[in-house]
Amino acid sequence: MKKINKIGILTSGGDAPGLNAVIRAVVITATRQYGWEVVGVHKGFEGLLEDPKTSLVHLELQDVISILQQGGTILGTTNRGHFVFSKDHPEELEDPAVATQALQFCKDNGIDALVAIGGDGTLQIAHQLEKKGLPIVSVPKTIDNDLLGTDYTFGFDTALTTATNAIDQIRTTASSHNRVMVVEVMGRDTGWISLYAGIGAGAHVILIPEIPFKLEPILKQIAWRDSFGANFTIIVVAEGAKPEEGDAMYLEEREEGGMARLGGIAKWLVNQLKDRCGDHDVREVVLGHLQRGGSPTASDRVLCTRFGAEAVHLIAQGRTGTMVSLRGTAIQATDIWKIVARQKFIPYNGDLVQTARGLGICLGD
Amino acid sequence: MKKINKIGILTSGGDAPGLNAVIRAVVITATRQYGWEVVGVHKGFEGLLEDPKTSLVHLELQDVISILQQGGTILGTTNRGHFVFSKDHPEELEDPAVATQALQFCKDNGIDALVAIGGDGTLQIAHQLEKKGLPIVSVPKTIDNDLLGTDYTFGFDTALTTATNAIDQIRTTASSHNRVMVVEVMGRDTGWISLYAGIGAGAHVILIPEIPFKLEPILKQIAWRDSFGANFTIIVVAEGAKPEEGDAMYLEEREEGGMARLGGIAKWLVNQLKDRCGDHDVREVVLGHLQRGGSPTASDRVLCTRFGAEAVHLIAQGRTGTMVSLRGTAIQATDIWKIVARQKFIPYNGDLVQTARGLGICLGD
Amino acid sequence: MKKINKIGILTSGGDAPGLNAVIRAVVITATRQYGWEVVGVHKGFEGLLEDPKTSLVHLELQDVISILQQGGTILGTTNRGHFVFSKDHPEELEDPAVATQALQFCKDNGIDALVAIGGDGTLQIAHQLEKKGLPIVSVPKTIDNDLLGTDYTFGFDTALTTATNAIDQIRTTASSHNRVMVVEVMGRDTGWISLYAGIGAGAHVILIPEIPFKLEPILKQIAWRDSFGANFTIIVVAEGAKPEEGDAMYLEEREEGGMARLGGIAKWLVNQLKDRCGDHDVREVVLGHLQRGGSPTASDRVLCTRFGAEAVHLIAQGRTGTMVSLRGTAIQATDIWKIVARQKFIPYNGDLVQTARGLGICLGD
Amino acid sequence: MKKINKIGILTSGGDAPGLNAVIRAVVITATRQYGWEVVGVHKGFEGLLEDPKTSLVHLELQDVISILQQGGTILGTTNRGHFVFSKDHPEELEDPAVATQALQFCKDNGIDALVAIGGDGTLQIAHQLEKKGLPIVSVPKTIDNDLLGTDYTFGFDTALTTATNAIDQIRTTASSHNRVMVVEVMGRDTGWISLYAGIGAGAHVILIPEIPFKLEPILKQIAWRDSFGANFTIIVVAEGAKPEEGDAMYLEEREEGGMARLGGIAKWLVNQLKDRCGDHDVREVVLGHLQRGGSPTASDRVLCTRFGAEAVHLIAQGRTGTMVSLRGTAIQATDIWKIVARQKFIPYNGDLVQTARGLGICLGD
Repeated sequence: MKKINKIGILTSGGDAPGLNAVIRAVVITATRQYGWEVVGVHKGFEGLLEDPKTSLVHLELQDVISILQQGGTILGTTNRGHFVFSKDHPEELEDPAVATQALQFCKDNGIDALVAIGGDGTLQIAHQLEKKGLPIVSVPKTIDNDLLGTDYTFGFDTALTTATNAIDQIRTTASSHNRVMVVEVMGRDTGWISLYAGIGAGAHVILIPEIPFKLEPILKQIAWRDSFGANFTIIVVAEGAKPEEGDAMYLEEREEGGMARLGGIAKWLVNQLKDRCGDHDVREVVLGHLQRGGSPTASDRVLCTRFGAEAVHLIAQGRTGTMVSLRGTAIQATDIWKIVARQKFIPYNGDLVQTARGLGICLGD
Repeated sequence: MKKINKIGILTSGGDAPGLNAVIRAVVITATRQYGWEVVGVHKGFEGLLEDPKTSLVHLELQDVISILQQGGTILGTTNRGHFVFSKDHPEELEDPAVATQALQFCKDNGIDALVAIGGDGTLQIAHQLEKKGLPIVSVPKTIDNDLLGTDYTFGFDTALTTATNAIDQIRTTASSHNRVMVVEVMGRDTGWISLYAGIGAGAHVILIPEIPFKLEPILKQIAWRDSFGANFTIIVVAEGAKPEEGDAMYLEEREEGGMARLGGIAKWLVNQLKDRCGDHDVREVVLGHLQRGGSPTASDRVLCTRFGAEAVHLIAQGRTGTMVSLRGTAIQATDIWKIVARQKFIPYNGDLVQTARGLGICLGD
Repeated sequence: MKKINKIGILTSGGDAPGLNAVIRAVVITATRQYGWEVVGVHKGFEGLLEDPKTSLVHLELQDVISILQQGGTILGTTNRGHFVFSKDHPEELEDPAVATQALQFCKDNGIDALVAIGGDGTLQIAHQLEKKGLPIVSVPKTIDNDLLGTDYTFGFDTALTTATNAIDQIRTTASSHNRVMVVEVMGRDTGWISLYAGIGAGAHVILIPEIPFKLEPILKQIAWRDSFGANFTIIVVAEGAKPEEGDAMYLEEREEGGMARLGGIAKWLVNQLKDRCGDHDVREVVLGHLQRGGSPTASDRVLCTRFGAEAVHLIAQGRTGTMVSLRGTAIQATDIWKIVARQKFIPYNGDLVQTARGLGICLGD
Repeated sequence: MKKINKIGILTSGGDAPGLNAVIRAVVITATRQYGWEVVGVHKGFEGLLEDPKTSLVHLELQDVISILQQGGTILGTTNRGHFVFSKDHPEELEDPAVATQALQFCKDNGIDALVAIGGDGTLQIAHQLEKKGLPIVSVPKTIDNDLLGTDYTFGFDTALTTATNAIDQIRTTASSHNRVMVVEVMGRDTGWISLYAGIGAGAHVILIPEIPFKLEPILKQIAWRDSFGANFTIIVVAEGAKPEEGDAMYLEEREEGGMARLGGIAKWLVNQLKDRCGDHDVREVVLGHLQRGGSPTASDRVLCTRFGAEAVHLIAQGRTGTMVSLRGTAIQATDIWKIVARQKFIPYNGDLVQTARGLGICLGD
């Protein structure tokens, strides 16, 4: 095991609350406990391909002293870049030269190991670079909570809180106007935010990507609520929820560059429902980027701090090629190869779904 | 002056945080201080045209004991109804019979006077009914703060707070991704929410209906911020802001039944800016109905309580045909005829606009 | 297994955010999914000794429809009562007759099983009553998070959030005035709130009951921060933290009826530190009852809802004598006899403590 | 009128949310709109007596770019110092040499005018320095809102919000336990925070310094609430509220260096009430320093920004010896000599007090 003198740290992929809290924990633990130097890499992995004079920044205690509470990342982040995976061989980089270049960059700049904070894309890149010889520990970030190998990712609790508070706020006005309100939350492939926030805010319909939905049960739920005078209905829908009928027009319209467009499903639902549920006004609110920002919740701050400290310990112990993870109340390490390029879906028969059904929440099926 | 035994109370028009706080203050003050009976009228003025068995509800202390903190209105509200004003004679009801019917309803049900909580539409109806002989005191509600005759309407402070907090949250993520973020807030004809929230959250561009905007100054502001490395820009736009160029296509597309469509201007701006500001991603967030709900702020709760109490005192003193109003630190009464059917715009040369300019905020002109 | 027709539900011990959310989940799940009747018992177990006419309340859907977001408990709660345990045989009730009476009450009122929401005291009583023949499922409630058998209790996340937000707020003013601020949080025997909130809010000293503290390391930490110009220090102290020196005077003064007095340790610390840390003003803030109230966080609402639903399922399956529990991401059942009358302490060598030390936080030892 | 090249800015007295927002507005407006240099003075007026190398800091755009949302003050503040007023001639400085020294400091360091952000003490010092020839504009800061010459001071809305939210939180737990809760808020001489927060949070008893209170009406209010089953009572008390009976022991015990001790009145009340109101537990919560910190509310941020901009304009116009002030919706200037050394009390017969009485709130008289 090589002696560590200097480590790099980068934040990659979509923004999530708590990135700065992880950076802070890494910097303090690495410098105070181990006496290492820490350099920040700007703009994620892309920074490893650029001029170190602008893409590297030396990080000391004073640089991180007041960032624990701040959303965003002082290092910046990018969603895509040169680290694109091949369409034919999805586990290999389209251009293997970028990996070689990144390794050379680290060697040239004395970076002995890397902490990479990010989601599934980050894990894939980290996996490639580790295989080529760059020691990396990853930290599981995504508001979507859809990474395997950890009970929870950081950022999820804050996004969930933002969504729940917003639904609380929409609820009172829905009730005043007897409205059907469609609230679209994040979740392209999985329904973690929608199911948690929907349960947490007392929604009446929750639509998640894991369960293709029909309109009929939704209309029934609205009618049922009307029948005893409740007179308003809150529908929480994940951005990636899909109608079972497979309305081709809809899907075409909604997609943009292979991705669900924010607000697409909410608008589609409003159009489908508006003339079919009596007198009710049907309106949508698309929370969108609100869910990626803001000061992390107390729980997320603690999780980020534990994750960041553990990432440093793992490097010190030579246990790289891993992702820090939460299991119950313990912080552990998971081998990246076991979890890379897979997603954590909501179990169809798990207690969460059963709890929702038992409460009479319509899941669209 | 007729002796008062029973008063009615109704909430009308769009939802606003604090309606319940006014209802509570009216009910407690009227019953405890004056010994009157209070009945709530469901669904605004429409309730005066319906069956009293379902549209009236007797209100006592225990009915309002825990509603101070709750958004929405326990009486329900409607945006439109039979109280439509004539297109040819905009100060007269299209169908004068509805006024007669409403008066008869009050007489039949022993309602000696009415507290009408609402915005400009409410004031117009109240003005008509008062002229026909029904004593009414109005309470100025609108998150838009665009009523004349009062320094502030209730609901505005809460909507402003929701918008400011949301922009705070968007700010960190805009910075992490070097984005231009367009945040659309309420304000069809006036820019109170956008100007206050924009200043309060440190926005870089604020677009308000009172000042038609051009794209050029906005692009300049983005470029200027790039020039010193700020690299992200927050644009706050009122739903009713208008491009000076008078883009006909845009206006057509945006309108729906004579009303700006929520999200219309935000989407238009994103499309206009996205290929003209360098590498920046340009994204929108439409806060929409979020701003109408939620627990009222401390300030709004106090204002609502003072307004509600004063409305009752005014009835007791026979000073109807008035609207309660805030002037400096004092609660007063304003004659409705002086302010009805007019709007309070942001003064073009007032200190608010000057302050924004002095801070280097771009107002689009 | 006896057929269930009617179940009782009660809330016992100190208040905690989320009690109402559990009640709601129990009532909806029991009535909708199983068709049972649910009765609420007022004021905890004491209600089983009183007149059922006042202590029982029939609970239906409409009674719980808007309580998910509300702190407190619609059933009321008591801290102590007739269910006192013997001093000589701490596992037996001082007066066994109260158990007999409670069982008879349930039989008389057709209560086939009970959901008891509470902390360690509740578990002890539940354990006794179950042994005598009353089927009971417990739900682990305590803001202190010190129950064994579950990863987390409900109420903890909300209390932690309240404490963290408060410390955030105190931090800015401590910095402006170069102050040493002592913030006392709940935690009579364990330091869960203090350690989590201290880490989450970036405290510089955290004192927990599990680690007796000395003044010297605290003074050193203050001096160290001064040495590089930080000039203020945040000390988070659990109400039950104890000085190692065993200052007899202090202990005597602090205790009141066998319990630490709120504010006792904070005041003692201020007095000890105030003349020994240079120019710094030393001030205290005692959060106290603030931490027991308020709307539960999103996470707590979800946890409460899952706990409540599971409690009902366990009764349906005849698996009583259990406590619902969270293990990782799963909701499970734990046998009460395995965990009753014991406490969950912070592991001295766990990652939480190590993380704190690695960050340079002083733990007083 | 002398040409301005450089201005100084300082923050003085107790901390208040929004100090940084004012600093930001002053720096941006002075540098961008007028092209002046701005220097910050550390630790209030004391900084004018110290070594400029450490007490002065050059402030540019980038120094204030992200402080709008932050509580506290980047310049630090002190409560007292060498600017003490004579006991015999309370309008004159005990040591006039400090004023001379401060003026010389400004001359030596090219400071042409000063923006002094503070409360009554600050106004007094500013008044003295202006009379000796240093042009000063003051900005009215105090969470207590007790300055004459302005409708509101900044910091008040945030403190009020903190207090109101805390009372909301305490309310649910008071209700669960049938408690009498005494919540002490700031307000040494005036009851602005207590009366506003008490009304805003629906308190049942509000005790303010302007109205000496008796215990009898409080006990009556508790009993009255018990009589219809409300069973809990929230008492909000200003730190400076006084019992009419003039309990000498109490007053002696409570005072410390001429100042009410935080928590003094709350503890006294708990002791007086605890055995005299039936079964109720009586508990206290002392909010204390919580109210001075935290991110300013949206309203406070706007007010601070307008105040800061106006302070700069006034200097540019040579209108010094003034305090910026809010009057209705307008920002104006008030001559300091008209308002210095006086306090704004709650009008005994104003609508606020009348509203409280009309709602059945007990004011202790």
